[in-house]
Amino acid sequence: MPNYTAPVEDMMFLFDKLRNNRNYNEIEKYKDVNTELVKDILVEAAKINENIILPLAKIGDENPTVLENGIVRTPPGYKEAYSKYIEDGWTSLSCDPKYGGQGMPKTVSAFFDEMLSSASLSFKLYSELSIGAYNCIFHHATDEIKNKYLPKMVEGKWSGTMCLTEPVCGTDLGLLKTKAKEQSDGTFKLTGQKIFITSGDHDLTENIIHLVIARATDSPNGTKGISLFLVPKFIVNEDGSIGARNGVSTGSIESKMGIKGSATCVLNFDDAVGYMIGSKNKGLNAMFTMMNLERIVVGIQGLGISEIAYQNSLSYAKERKQGKTNNTKSTNGADCIIEHADIRKSLLNMKSIIEGERALCFWLSQQTEVSLYHSDEKIKKEASDFVSLMTPVVKTMFTDMGMEITSDAMQVHGGYGYTKDQGIEQLYRDNRITPIYEGTNSIQAADLVFRKLVNKNGDIINRYLDMIKNDINIEDEKLKPFVEDFNSNIKILSHFTTWMKEKIQKSKDDASAACNDYLKALGFVAIAHSWIKVLEVSFKDHNNNKNFYEDKIQTAKFYFKRVLPRVENHFKTAITGSDYIMNFNFK
Amino acid sequence: MPNYTAPVEDMMFLFDKLRNNRNYNEIEKYKDVNTELVKDILVEAAKINENIILPLAKIGDENPTVLENGIVRTPPGYKEAYSKYIEDGWTSLSCDPKYGGQGMPKTVSAFFDEMLSSASLSFKLYSELSIGAYNCIFHHATDEIKNKYLPKMVEGKWSGTMCLTEPVCGTDLGLLKTKAKEQSDGTFKLTGQKIFITSGDHDLTENIIHLVIARATDSPNGTKGISLFLVPKFIVNEDGSIGARNGVSTGSIESKMGIKGSATCVLNFDDAVGYMIGSKNKGLNAMFTMMNLERIVVGIQGLGISEIAYQNSLSYAKERKQGKTNNTKSTNGADCIIEHADIRKSLLNMKSIIEGERALCFWLSQQTEVSLYHSDEKIKKEASDFVSLMTPVVKTMFTDMGMEITSDAMQVHGGYGYTKDQGIEQLYRDNRITPIYEGTNSIQAADLVFRKLVNKNGDIINRYLDMIKNDINIEDEKLKPFVEDFNSNIKILSHFTTWMKEKIQKSKDDASAACNDYLKALGFVAIAHSWIKVLEVSFKDHNNNKNFYEDKIQTAKFYFKRVLPRVENHFKTAITGSDYIMNFNFK
Repeated sequence: MPNYTAPVEDMMFLFDKLRNNRNYNEIEKYKDVNTELVKDILVEAAKINENIILPLAKIGDENPTVLENGIVRTPPGYKEAYSKYIEDGWTSLSCDPKYGGQGMPKTVSAFFDEMLSSASLSFKLYSELSIGAYNCIFHHATDEIKNKYLPKMVEGKWSGTMCLTEPVCGTDLGLLKTKAKEQSDGTFKLTGQKIFITSGDHDLTENIIHLVIARATDSPNGTKGISLFLVPKFIVNEDGSIGARNGVSTGSIESKMGIKGSATCVLNFDDAVGYMIGSKNKGLNAMFTMMNLERIVVGIQGLGISEIAYQNSLSYAKERKQGKTNNTKSTNGADCIIEHADIRKSLLNMKSIIEGERALCFWLSQQTEVSLYHSDEKIKKEASDFVSLMTPVVKTMFTDMGMEITSDAMQVHGGYGYTKDQGIEQLYRDNRITPIYEGTNSIQAADLVFRKLVNKNGDIINRYLDMIKNDINIEDEKLKPFVEDFNSNIKILSHFTTWMKEKIQKSKDDASAACNDYLKALGFVAIAHSWIKVLEVSFKDHNNNKNFYEDKIQTAKFYFKRVLPRVENHFKTAITGSDYIMNFNFK
Repeated sequence: MPNYTAPVEDMMFLFDKLRNNRNYNEIEKYKDVNTELVKDILVEAAKINENIILPLAKIGDENPTVLENGIVRTPPGYKEAYSKYIEDGWTSLSCDPKYGGQGMPKTVSAFFDEMLSSASLSFKLYSELSIGAYNCIFHHATDEIKNKYLPKMVEGKWSGTMCLTEPVCGTDLGLLKTKAKEQSDGTFKLTGQKIFITSGDHDLTENIIHLVIARATDSPNGTKGISLFLVPKFIVNEDGSIGARNGVSTGSIESKMGIKGSATCVLNFDDAVGYMIGSKNKGLNAMFTMMNLERIVVGIQGLGISEIAYQNSLSYAKERKQGKTNNTKSTNGADCIIEHADIRKSLLNMKSIIEGERALCFWLSQQTEVSLYHSDEKIKKEASDFVSLMTPVVKTMFTDMGMEITSDAMQVHGGYGYTKDQGIEQLYRDNRITPIYEGTNSIQAADLVFRKLVNKNGDIINRYLDMIKNDINIEDEKLKPFVEDFNSNIKILSHFTTWMKEKIQKSKDDASAACNDYLKALGFVAIAHSWIKVLEVSFKDHNNNKNFYEDKIQTAKFYFKRVLPRVENHFKTAITGSDYIMNFNFK
């Protein structure tokens, strides 16, 4: 089983030193969220993740969730751990105090999401979608519904799901077939089949609140006829107690490559009672609130799994002796593999990407909070645009890098990385879902290019580029070589952006064929931007924590020399166009 | 379960049109191996792989090999399939007629290896190591041993293994601990533990012939005291019949991420009777004959798995409807995903790499035969040097590209790619061993840089570069744009080579940190070289098979525009040196 130590020091560094976003610091409701409080939370979070949740990963992999006589049973130990988890209030961390939540900002809850992803992604998924459903209900439902459902969800006694996908309708939600027939009392009856529903059924909570998109019988075809419904597994009585079973049943659960402790369900809705959330035919808007936040969390999953993969690769490399280095001082014929250049390179690649991503994620968490709660509408909108721009980037980069990192971790472990004993291969398998679910990474790239660069609020990407250029007007000799590298990559990205905008107008296929490369280029630059901000502090504050900052500076050096140059390759291949791709005659 | 159709047409194209190596065509023993004969063999090979072996892949994954009461049992159906397999003579394909083989050259057996890897890697491994052991015995043992063991191995009634790895000795064979004590009759008794032994024990054959490296009790430490021994599972009597059980037992079998139908064994040798092969303390030389050929076959495994992953991605992309393309003509709201630019790009990436690799492998097979059987010693040696240069390249490139391709295949399948039903995720898991075993890909890269570029026969890499430069002196207007791209990448590779040679002398750590990048750069250029040779024929012979050649030309276009440019990125990052990597202080 892999070991895990939550990176509390790095998280507290970000919280203490990079919480320098004026807009974020102006948010009234987070004034009291100070260093001491956050430190206390992270220390407790580390404990439950390292001690209680981490062992569930292997257990879940070896004893997958099963469907027995219509009942989904989670792996051994999940129930006990979940009880402890909700008892300690972890489901309520970021929820509104009005419904029993602790009201922590995303800057804090994202750290917790990362730890939980490191410890056990399968276990995490049982509460993750509840938070998604909570957010959706919180932002779009009536007070009546909020009062009825949210307290139990915040408490963790009830969980939630997102029911979108159908057999012929994944990416393309316009194809959806599930029907909702309005009843005389204003409720609806839903009929149809939903697939790939994470935590669609399980034995951890008393009730499950499904958020289901469906088409009202009198709604138009396509995406313009989609509404959102709340469909509880058990009907909730007026007094809040649990009533009769609703018409939702589990058809089957998927047998998967990884996240075997997580129940991925086929749900059959058969005249199931549902309550409309938000306006009729505007269901996708409401669902997207949930999906966008969820996409960032999927990115964080990739980050969390990368972190535990790195930690275990590092400790294995320090122990395993094999081969002599170029400058060996060993007398018994072998050095620890951490002395070998290629292993060091592999470890630094992991570390420099992970720490850069964590800093980027922290920046994005601040932007998210500004976009939700700042008092100035203009500032709010600007932050919201940045969040919307970075959502597909974080989802895709962090999960793709998670694949690179977990694969490299297996490679560091050699033959032992391929066997079940070490648990490294499980990290690879568990993470492999992250580039697929919540919209494949190709869909994210198309979303970025065709919807996010320029939107109704104007030229978002140019505002972003201006912002990062502005951030590097720093007079610091030591920072100079980094800034120069950064600048030349911003230039490449700017060219790429100009090219992309032109193609979006004049030659859409060229743009489509270049989406993935563009996202990667933007992603590597965004991580570099975060590194610049980390470096700025590291040089300024150097004397106060020499070891820590020196580590940061050296790690950044690797990122700028070995990782950031990938930007240029993405640009160069992308601009070769698409005619030879689109005209190819596949036999 | 994935479908598979053996790419006989492409294989026959290579055999017919690219068998233009004069040296190869001069080999006397292959004069009768003509188109008709090879076509017959490939058609029969396609049948057994598509019909009998392909279904074993899923069966083996769902019913892994087990160890019961000291006996290793293969998955259901393996025994019956293996009987048919040896009855049809597939084990004997490339073996010498003297011992009952069919005497086919590697140009043919490599095609068979590819098909078998596509159909079921787990099943393949039971005979693959037998061929390795056959080659090792054939080239290094006495006639007495050859006559006693080879006929049964060629027939497939007995199988073989390579026993190298020990718990603290993987890459670094100098650390090996297994002891061999000489007996008065000239035999040895071996004691020690070997791990990760593929097909170390199983129920498919009457006997298993282990080739074991061990240290004679009076031999020196390190790699200079290693000898090679033949240790049969059952002692073979003078008359060739099977006698008493030898002192070899199976301690356990590994539970692995993939290739679950293959038995990966811990073997305990306890005073096991062994016969020395070759000279004392020269065991590694003999073993390396086997390992080098085996490494090429591991590359072919990656190619075979890539091919089946591609085929299934292509057919899925033609069926699955999702989303509208930029130029949609669909009226029901969705186009087949093969119409989407990013899916097309992904498919062409697979196809252009696979077909280029297959052509490179065919070139290498010819070189291998020349290196073994040409009558002119000088020609033989030159071919041998090219084979030795390309062995780590093919092993690493084909297996790493296999990971890229199987991962992209999962991505094309979306959520269905992550579930067990489609069998796509199994291809990913099965292939994941290939960058690890037979020496990790990092070891291959170090081998290439420190041992293969320049050796006792001189400057091999320069001879290689001269050879490929010479191959593009082609007067063909249509080929010109390809040749220009190729030339500029040869230039980058030449710079990289000069840089590398200097670093090997003056700054070994810089070279070590750049090994992986150098191997990739050379690999992409080598595949491009093969594409140039394919293109030359495709333009010249165009009128005789327009559709086929047009497909080749368009596929090559993708390779040169989107794949080959990776060379530059590898070069640029590699030459940033290693001081910031070697000096990093890992905590």
